Amino acid sequence: MNGPKPNPTAYTAASDNADTATTIPVPTGTRDVLPEEMAELREISANALKVFADAGYGEVATPALEYEQTNRIGATDSEDGAYRVPDKDGQILTLRYDSTIPIARLAATRYSEVEPPLRFCYLQHVYRPIKPKRAQSREFLQIGMELMGMPAPNGDAEAIELISNVLKSAGLNDFRIAVGDVGFFSEKLAAAGIDDSEQASILHELQTRDLVGLRRQLMAAAPEKAEALGEVAAARGGRELIEREGAERLVALDDLLQKSGVADNVIYDLGLVRSLSYYTGTVFEVYTSTSGFAIGGGGRYDDLVGRFGRDLAAFGFALNMERLHLAAIAEKEASVN
Amino acid sequence: MNGPKPNPTAYTAASDNADTATTIPVPTGTRDVLPEEMAELREISANALKVFADAGYGEVATPALEYEQTNRIGATDSEDGAYRVPDKDGQILTLRYDSTIPIARLAATRYSEVEPPLRFCYLQHVYRPIKPKRAQSREFLQIGMELMGMPAPNGDAEAIELISNVLKSAGLNDFRIAVGDVGFFSEKLAAAGIDDSEQASILHELQTRDLVGLRRQLMAAAPEKAEALGEVAAARGGRELIEREGAERLVALDDLLQKSGVADNVIYDLGLVRSLSYYTGTVFEVYTSTSGFAIGGGGRYDDLVGRFGRDLAAFGFALNMERLHLAAIAEKEASVN
Repeated sequence: MNGPKPNPTAYTAASDNADTATTIPVPTGTRDVLPEEMAELREISANALKVFADAGYGEVATPALEYEQTNRIGATDSEDGAYRVPDKDGQILTLRYDSTIPIARLAATRYSEVEPPLRFCYLQHVYRPIKPKRAQSREFLQIGMELMGMPAPNGDAEAIELISNVLKSAGLNDFRIAVGDVGFFSEKLAAAGIDDSEQASILHELQTRDLVGLRRQLMAAAPEKAEALGEVAAARGGRELIEREGAERLVALDDLLQKSGVADNVIYDLGLVRSLSYYTGTVFEVYTSTSGFAIGGGGRYDDLVGRFGRDLAAFGFALNMERLHLAAIAEKEASVN
Repeated sequence: MNGPKPNPTAYTAASDNADTATTIPVPTGTRDVLPEEMAELREISANALKVFADAGYGEVATPALEYEQTNRIGATDSEDGAYRVPDKDGQILTLRYDSTIPIARLAATRYSEVEPPLRFCYLQHVYRPIKPKRAQSREFLQIGMELMGMPAPNGDAEAIELISNVLKSAGLNDFRIAVGDVGFFSEKLAAAGIDDSEQASILHELQTRDLVGLRRQLMAAAPEKAEALGEVAAARGGRELIEREGAERLVALDDLLQKSGVADNVIYDLGLVRSLSYYTGTVFEVYTSTSGFAIGGGGRYDDLVGRFGRDLAAFGFALNMERLHLAAIAEKEASVN
């Protein structure tokens, strides 16, 4: 290990510190990364970037500051999500909120005439305003990929196989990839005669994982089918589940995942939805036995690149580098004990 | 090379592009980095980080968003320099304007009880508001170091030797390190009976490299000594210059640089000043025969860390990664032709 070791009493959150008038804390949800951790993050990211490069993915970087309009085109729900930065000339810039939207812009403009599929990866920070008093990150480092011009199920399978290899490159073997389909549950709701606005309320409860709220909304919208729909939303399982429920798109994906051997780490979750609005098909999240949160996730977004001028079906994922690192440490420690 | 190749007609500045309503440019002074360049930047930065690690420097990262007060403590002239980002809870955050001030904060708080010297390096972006219509960067990636607790001339010599090794690790051999002393010229001005406010005006002309303005200010302040002072400000040379002019601190530094063999790439510049206000001693800038701008620079800042609560003499430098990369390409091409 190079560089000095911090105070024996070094706090993990500098923002807890308010010793003297000259000791300025960092804002909540941000932190300093010290040499020991930084060296490990560099090693994990170098290994992951090698996995991406070996699979034909080229790394790109996009500006941290972009015009607000780029976000507006990319995601209808992020207008008030990103940090807004007034520029000297009166323009409003936004801080990078995610990497998928700017890479969709990049692909549609800089690669407008290039034969698909287009394979990109990235390692960059994103910035999100946080609510006070919650343990949220204002800034975090993500590593991820975008595969454009390869429709389902092949693009989905390539991405899920790739994230599995990235996780293994970090030393993680004890992980679960929860896979869902954003269309599946809304199709069930529509088939039960539930209208669009009621569907939106129900999906919101799912997204916030409020199962009590979900059950209440289902009871109000379709009392006699509420229990069955609630069971679908909570259903998790393997091949037999998606066959039984008629989740045909997931069955087609599973055929490919069985072949590549990745299916062993996959669990299907028919109630899985994600908070970003651009997803149109398969979505997934990665969990480990030690992490309380998903350490990453992604999904299919077949309409997004087209909004920037080139119609390409696409799939992308991102991993939170800090959570990936902590999960790798936890697995290593568990194997020692 | 991995990843797709861009359009054969790919523009170097996406911001020139305004083809269609859906083609959103990136803000002037920012850019997308595409795979071929990104792979080369990763290689250069990995080589440089290895040089730092071998010299005992530990890499750190600081938040992109910090409280405005941190900048205020660090630099009296940067209040209106950094991007200000209003937070949801009414606090004003600023985007990282340079890395030296936050690492001074980090060292003083997280390493308050650790035996010096403290050796840190970093690879992170900085953000600066730009004036319209000038070819300035709003966002750029810097690699650099901070050496704390080693006074002049030893700390200065270690840093200049280190930057020389970093440049060589990028394949650059044809470079010049211009070295000056921020105190030297103001001492000459004081000796000529020029008062503090006149000194400030004169140093401002030097900083903006306005030699006509400099001569006019000198004539107004000390007409009979203006010519001699103007010559000192414009003087560049080797050992014989600093001995002749009595620049004793630079002579002591040169003794060390001669020993390490770095002196061959050094030229002393008695009029060199830098735009950041925290420098207190030796300052330097790196030039190559192909770059019109300095590709990096740094200097001694013995008062800054103390403002955050721990009194440590310090020296730091930063290289602009994009300029370093372009200079390395230019030298490689020149050697082929």
